[in-house]
Amino acid sequence: MQLNLSTDIALRTLIYLGQKDAPATISEVSAAFDIAKTHLMKVVMTLVAQGLVISERGRNGGIRLARDAAKIRIGDVVQTMEPSMALVYCMRPDANETDCPLLPGCKLKKAFSKAQKAFLASLDESTLSDLLPTKPIRVKP
Amino acid sequence: MQLNLSTDIALRTLIYLGQKDAPATISEVSAAFDIAKTHLMKVVMTLVAQGLVISERGRNGGIRLARDAAKIRIGDVVQTMEPSMALVYCMRPDANETDCPLLPGCKLKKAFSKAQKAFLASLDESTLSDLLPTKPIRVKP
Repeated sequence: MQLNLSTDIALRTLIYLGQKDAPATISEVSAAFDIAKTHLMKVVMTLVAQGLVISERGRNGGIRLARDAAKIRIGDVVQTMEPSMALVYCMRPDANETDCPLLPGCKLKKAFSKAQKAFLASLDESTLSDLLPTKPIRVKP
Repeated sequence: MQLNLSTDIALRTLIYLGQKDAPATISEVSAAFDIAKTHLMKVVMTLVAQGLVISERGRNGGIRLARDAAKIRIGDVVQTMEPSMALVYCMRPDANETDCPLLPGCKLKKAFSKAQKAFLASLDESTLSDLLPTKPIRVKP
């Protein structure tokens, strides 16, 4: 039970940006988490497309949060970033009875959908603001 | 957000066994879900090792549930089968500050641990017995 690595990176990038007063560079975030720049770039592009991060060019440019950290819900970030929320086969939109003959009367999907709602509801009790570190982040030189 | 394929197969194998009066063969379960026998065998070996399934040799042998379906909790099956419950990097036992400088004061782990507990608690409200199909399973010939 693991989130996609991109979701993990997205969460940490948002926390990094949330605890910083000035815009950050891709190089800086990449170095902080020892993540390949190409992977980070893709994650940041998704965060920009989803209206969570703003990317600004220029001398004082970089990436920063698009809105107040208190207005970014963690469950929303997970749902935005995960490529699939289908925990089990029967939650997939293309699930069919040929591949799983249990489908017609099986209650697996219902149990997992309910558990996933509980998971996301719990996460949505936290905003990005709640997750920010109490101590300033020390980034290796 | 997907469970490991082995967990998915384990859940469906348990449901299959739970709705059947007689022991099932590996070939039969493999055909029912169109899953490779080698993969299914590995999953069944884990289920046997975890005391969830019994494998019996002989003419009337096969695999069957080791205990009543009402005594198998779904959250327990997920925890037993998943190779890792570390949703995000900081939940891993080997998480360290060098790889993620957020660690000392970050509250990501706490939020995700809480959400995971809510997820498993919700699943544990269901036993295997609750998930069994109301209609008998039709397996393709």
